[in-house]
Amino acid sequence: MRMYDLIVKKKHGGELSTGEIRFMIEKYTDGTIPDYQMSSMLMAICFRGMSKRETLDLTLAMRDSGDVMDLSGIRGIKVDKHSTGGVGDKTTLALAPLVASLGVPVAKMAGRGLGHTGGTIDKLECFPGFHTGISEETFLSNVNQIGIAVAGQTKSLAPADKKLYALRDVTGTVDELSLIASSIMSKKLCSGSDAIVLDVKTGSGAFMKHMDDACALAEQMVAIGTMAGKKTMAAITDMDQPLGYAVGNSLEVVEAIETLEGNGPADFKQVVFALGTLMLLAAKRAESKEEASGMMETAIRDGRALKKLAEFVRAQGGDDAYVSDPSKFPKAPVVVPVIAEKSGYVTRILAEKIGAACMMLGGGRMTKDAQIDRSVGIRLQKKNADVVKKGDTLACLYAASEKELDNVIQNIKTAYEIGSERPARTDVVKKIITDDTISE
Amino acid sequence: MRMYDLIVKKKHGGELSTGEIRFMIEKYTDGTIPDYQMSSMLMAICFRGMSKRETLDLTLAMRDSGDVMDLSGIRGIKVDKHSTGGVGDKTTLALAPLVASLGVPVAKMAGRGLGHTGGTIDKLECFPGFHTGISEETFLSNVNQIGIAVAGQTKSLAPADKKLYALRDVTGTVDELSLIASSIMSKKLCSGSDAIVLDVKTGSGAFMKHMDDACALAEQMVAIGTMAGKKTMAAITDMDQPLGYAVGNSLEVVEAIETLEGNGPADFKQVVFALGTLMLLAAKRAESKEEASGMMETAIRDGRALKKLAEFVRAQGGDDAYVSDPSKFPKAPVVVPVIAEKSGYVTRILAEKIGAACMMLGGGRMTKDAQIDRSVGIRLQKKNADVVKKGDTLACLYAASEKELDNVIQNIKTAYEIGSERPARTDVVKKIITDDTISE
Repeated sequence: MRMYDLIVKKKHGGELSTGEIRFMIEKYTDGTIPDYQMSSMLMAICFRGMSKRETLDLTLAMRDSGDVMDLSGIRGIKVDKHSTGGVGDKTTLALAPLVASLGVPVAKMAGRGLGHTGGTIDKLECFPGFHTGISEETFLSNVNQIGIAVAGQTKSLAPADKKLYALRDVTGTVDELSLIASSIMSKKLCSGSDAIVLDVKTGSGAFMKHMDDACALAEQMVAIGTMAGKKTMAAITDMDQPLGYAVGNSLEVVEAIETLEGNGPADFKQVVFALGTLMLLAAKRAESKEEASGMMETAIRDGRALKKLAEFVRAQGGDDAYVSDPSKFPKAPVVVPVIAEKSGYVTRILAEKIGAACMMLGGGRMTKDAQIDRSVGIRLQKKNADVVKKGDTLACLYAASEKELDNVIQNIKTAYEIGSERPARTDVVKKIITDDTISE
Repeated sequence: MRMYDLIVKKKHGGELSTGEIRFMIEKYTDGTIPDYQMSSMLMAICFRGMSKRETLDLTLAMRDSGDVMDLSGIRGIKVDKHSTGGVGDKTTLALAPLVASLGVPVAKMAGRGLGHTGGTIDKLECFPGFHTGISEETFLSNVNQIGIAVAGQTKSLAPADKKLYALRDVTGTVDELSLIASSIMSKKLCSGSDAIVLDVKTGSGAFMKHMDDACALAEQMVAIGTMAGKKTMAAITDMDQPLGYAVGNSLEVVEAIETLEGNGPADFKQVVFALGTLMLLAAKRAESKEEASGMMETAIRDGRALKKLAEFVRAQGGDDAYVSDPSKFPKAPVVVPVIAEKSGYVTRILAEKIGAACMMLGGGRMTKDAQIDRSVGIRLQKKNADVVKKGDTLACLYAASEKELDNVIQNIKTAYEIGSERPARTDVVKKIITDDTISE
């Protein structure tokens, strides 16, 4: 078998066999197939696409390129949750303890990642002492005892995907749906969970700008997961403005805590509940959406969810006093309001610009080894469809110093689009996609 | 400027600017742009194509990546000739002395190349003593004095094309027309000639299997040459069977000599005359096709063309006695006839298989440093539309030994397609394409 022939086959619209895809991924991972052949193949795939079968085969070949977690020592149905990423997405911080408090075992591998804010681990590390460098033994026993644990990724999960993604990133081949779907799903299939719940963001601040693309991606991922034998479901959620009000590591942690106290932003709560419902259904803890929703309301009302967060933080070395008193989190010394220059209604908040502003403040990582400042960020005061009067505060920025804030302020100002007519309020949860809802 | 952005632009169907193409070629040639980005771009070009302007810019950027020959010291209008390559293509051997004898200065850089037979230099080296390692001074003065010289390529002509072609060769991106056209033309524009005559082969034995593709390629090349300020013309010629009867280095030299003696195969003479006409017109030595044709007939009849070949061979150290007595060329010791197994008409001779047979006999080069045997080859006895009786000799093969000839014989047998109905004889010169014939 020669990679050359596979490139030509795909270029002419042919379908690669299971054996051909395995060959390609194995030989690319071990370095036998050079980058320049793989990038040529990737571009051909961008034009020709891949069939469902090819996409599944690619996903499984990448999954099998490294370790697969064994969570069989954990009792119950393990459900993994994944978000395609957005600005202000602190969902895991609230969702994980919430469903854990309702008996869904949460055993999560998380990363730091690059972006406008840190990853889930960075946010959890806002709790002084919290650490994810726990042994596999502790990880498993924590899940069995308190129902939740988060560990940094130690094993080599899907190294083929890592190598392929790095190549796609520099060759203009990141945006093909079957490549995106197989990349995400190969990692999810390594997580050892029994079911997978996906949060696919759509809108100006998401990777998938258009609803159609987001649905197509979600359908592909649900199909892959299902064919690979895992119960898989997806929610399409809005990213045409940041999620909630807080953008920035400790600001987001506080907002997650407020949500578990019953005082969170409506849109954020809706996303948490939609995903929580899917997780409770997948884990067979609830039998209907209504039941799941009722269970979550109760867990928040009676304090169980918040208590679970405290328990979780403590179990991994963190100071749980911060859970009951979020005012303990260190505050950024400089707080600057961003003022509206005209009156009207907020018609859109370009989430990418808010994200970029947070990054400029030092709240996100541009390079892998960059230090981040957990106290900085942006707290929105106005969201879509809100009335704005000239002179109102649109958002507050939290900065480490007063230096070089002009660009940040400018970014936030231009992120806000203000019009004269009130836009319709749209649902933050746009669609639920399950195995049953996918039409052939 | 970032190569990444150029890839994405082309992928989405955009047109690259002159500056972008220059950047891409310069930075790829000096190694700043890695192979994996260029191969991704090449595949995108295969799907999106390039505009005429882009193709011209690519050609010029590749031309300018190395040396450009200065032939200004040669009097007259210099015309370069290029063939896209086929089996039994000994055209230059007859054409160059023929037009040189009529006052068209022939100053040719030639290569050895890989393939079923050697390149033009290999064939010329069949004359004992002939060598192409002459100084630039000798090269220029020979052209001025006797009208013809052939040198091996010493300067670094279009290194960008060399690097790009090597990459295309292993990434499934060789067959895109504008890439082919710019590759050929970048080298032609380095040759320092004033005009360019192209022989574009079409048919089973050619790179361009279909007439439409051959015409499209010829039109692109003529357009590029014209836009670059060189008079450029092309003939589309048949390669649905080998050209002439002889395939193999010294066999082809003998056939070229016979042609200059007035005894060559009809199809070969037609190709030589078609290209010769274009060269005489381009060099302004003739004013019409008829005049050009008459001049060439005369030069053959009065022996001027053959005398020019002898003069040329002698001027570069070769033994010109072989020109007047071709029986002096060493003969392969083993001659085996390939016999027809059924009666009918020859409907096709798969030129690629005849070429492969010559390669198996040792007459061609598989790797750059391979030695070739100049005496071996195949001499066809039957050509398209000829009557064949069972037991007739289809072709004779000339081999160095009797060993391992079964595959060679088999290749030749299966190259011949014999049917019960006489096919129409087709013209070997199918179309002439000039600047005027190209419709927008």
